Amino acid sequence: MVNQQKLTHFVSWLNQNELSGAIITNFHDVAYFSGFESDPIERVLALVVFSDHEPLLFGPALEVNSMRASGWPFAAFGYADHENPWLILAQHIKQTTSGTKFGIEYDHLSVARFNALQTALPSLSFKTDVTNEVNQLRLLKTPAEIEHMMAAGKDADRALTIGFQALTSGISELAVSAKIEYELKKSGVAAMSFDTLVQFGTHAADPHGATATRELATGEMALFDLGTITEGYASDVSRTIAFGQVDPKLQEIHAVTLAAQQEAQSQAKVGMTAAELDGIARQIITDAGYGDYFVHRLGHGLGTSVHEYPSIMAGNNITLQEGMAFSIEPGIYIPGLGGVRIEDSGYMSHTGFIPFTTTSKSLYQL
Amino acid sequence: MVNQQKLTHFVSWLNQNELSGAIITNFHDVAYFSGFESDPIERVLALVVFSDHEPLLFGPALEVNSMRASGWPFAAFGYADHENPWLILAQHIKQTTSGTKFGIEYDHLSVARFNALQTALPSLSFKTDVTNEVNQLRLLKTPAEIEHMMAAGKDADRALTIGFQALTSGISELAVSAKIEYELKKSGVAAMSFDTLVQFGTHAADPHGATATRELATGEMALFDLGTITEGYASDVSRTIAFGQVDPKLQEIHAVTLAAQQEAQSQAKVGMTAAELDGIARQIITDAGYGDYFVHRLGHGLGTSVHEYPSIMAGNNITLQEGMAFSIEPGIYIPGLGGVRIEDSGYMSHTGFIPFTTTSKSLYQL
Repeated sequence: MVNQQKLTHFVSWLNQNELSGAIITNFHDVAYFSGFESDPIERVLALVVFSDHEPLLFGPALEVNSMRASGWPFAAFGYADHENPWLILAQHIKQTTSGTKFGIEYDHLSVARFNALQTALPSLSFKTDVTNEVNQLRLLKTPAEIEHMMAAGKDADRALTIGFQALTSGISELAVSAKIEYELKKSGVAAMSFDTLVQFGTHAADPHGATATRELATGEMALFDLGTITEGYASDVSRTIAFGQVDPKLQEIHAVTLAAQQEAQSQAKVGMTAAELDGIARQIITDAGYGDYFVHRLGHGLGTSVHEYPSIMAGNNITLQEGMAFSIEPGIYIPGLGGVRIEDSGYMSHTGFIPFTTTSKSLYQL
Repeated sequence: MVNQQKLTHFVSWLNQNELSGAIITNFHDVAYFSGFESDPIERVLALVVFSDHEPLLFGPALEVNSMRASGWPFAAFGYADHENPWLILAQHIKQTTSGTKFGIEYDHLSVARFNALQTALPSLSFKTDVTNEVNQLRLLKTPAEIEHMMAAGKDADRALTIGFQALTSGISELAVSAKIEYELKKSGVAAMSFDTLVQFGTHAADPHGATATRELATGEMALFDLGTITEGYASDVSRTIAFGQVDPKLQEIHAVTLAAQQEAQSQAKVGMTAAELDGIARQIITDAGYGDYFVHRLGHGLGTSVHEYPSIMAGNNITLQEGMAFSIEPGIYIPGLGGVRIEDSGYMSHTGFIPFTTTSKSLYQL
């Protein structure tokens, strides 16, 4: 559904900044404002927001019916594969306004596309990057958005239960990952936020490794990192659990990670900076002697995309505000031994951080 | 594994064009040259190829171990989440060469990243777009690449069989899609080329709709579009089959699409242009009165990505050459009635088009 409230905010901002409009090309942002969800892959999809006219959607001809069916109440135009989309988009813009100052998303538009756009509209100037303003609008979730994210979190909890129950000696990471997605999709969950990650034993020491053919053995840990999409909103959760009795060293890094995660989650407060929150978890892990093995930021924002503002990391002095949604996911990864990551995503309320997921974080769950 | 042959070609091209190097940032291209497969999502991943020094890989700190484990035999450097990657990359480049002319991928690098790169390396110039040269290198597949794609095609055929067998009255599109991916992953297929598409009945009239909760009824058609990844190479295949006896109009559009697909596949010849091949299929569909319902190009190249050069469409005068790999996928989509798409991907040999998939294209398969 079109997000009229945020569109109105954005139009006000365009007027304040004396822009005639903005061309939004990041499909997550197009979906956020228009309600039309589509990844155009290498094709061009654009939402043009005007300061004093109704917005228009523009994309591949074969998506125009879907745009209308999505409930988009304004104009929708298409281009065929053999046409130059920028020339056609240019015509629609020139027919709508004689204004010449447009914002674009510097973070998304490629150099080649920027050049093509400028060539198609030589009299327009694109000196304003609207990335930050769009990210700011997306940053503070409305109650309706929080509700979708809560629903996505429930599906993610269910996914973890399916995954825990699927663990048997000799099963492969891929089989567990596939089982989780199979059961969810059978029950109507249309999409995952990302490929469901399952890592066993020492494989979990690689925090960006992929689910593969490794088979589970007793005495190993299993790391899960997964998410689901509900009404366009993403969940994201991680748990690391033991399959059988595990080495005391693994128990220790689990306990340290859990302490860091829980402390950050309970200390998160409106007014604190993102860097401070990262620091709370990092200090606990560093004090335990594992600082060098916590090789990523504490967390990331999420919403209609699974990675968005705010980034919870050193150096980011943005203050946490009511309505921000983000993950808290410390990890310790020791090559040759194993890895632990424990993550809840949630949102800031005036009382603190409210998680979207509630699955127990205990090491022994089975 | 590092693709030394193509890297050597690329270095020669850099020298011919008097460039000191190139910064490759499209992760598909990084994987193609380096053998290191990783989608860095919003983080920065770059392969820097120098005209007179060894190349280097650069990416998130948490991926550096994976880079080395992938068999990359040259230098690999990382940056932490709180660091400015462009400043660190700049140091590595300045330590390697005093050259100042570098190519970049205009099709991939965003305006914001280009600005950050230029700011970090103010004395370097980035006036050359290497996109086309990289795409040209990727365009002609080696025998080893063809072998991977043949293997991926076999998995795609197996996926279709699983999907056909899963069809029962009342099953949802999502359940069939999930069943296919579950069975493949259980057997060790690590990844699909894209989310497995299953559409029933009138839903198939939307060629870019997504798999959803619609349930199958007797007398409907089921459209499948799917692919798998083998050794980093993608397959892509579509079939549309009948579940029970279907309306004569549906039988007709299936027959027309099939005739167009088969004619294009058998007529494809080295030396023909991509536009000519598109025209062969389009003419058959147009002559049958359905030209307005064939709303997309005939096909697209594939390889380490599922959409790459050559685009098989009107206006593209590239000539087909031995070693090019692409899809041939005409379709007819009639809102309110249904849709048909039939697709094989394959490669050009001197004798013609050799498909990677061999599943029967018959309407009645069950």
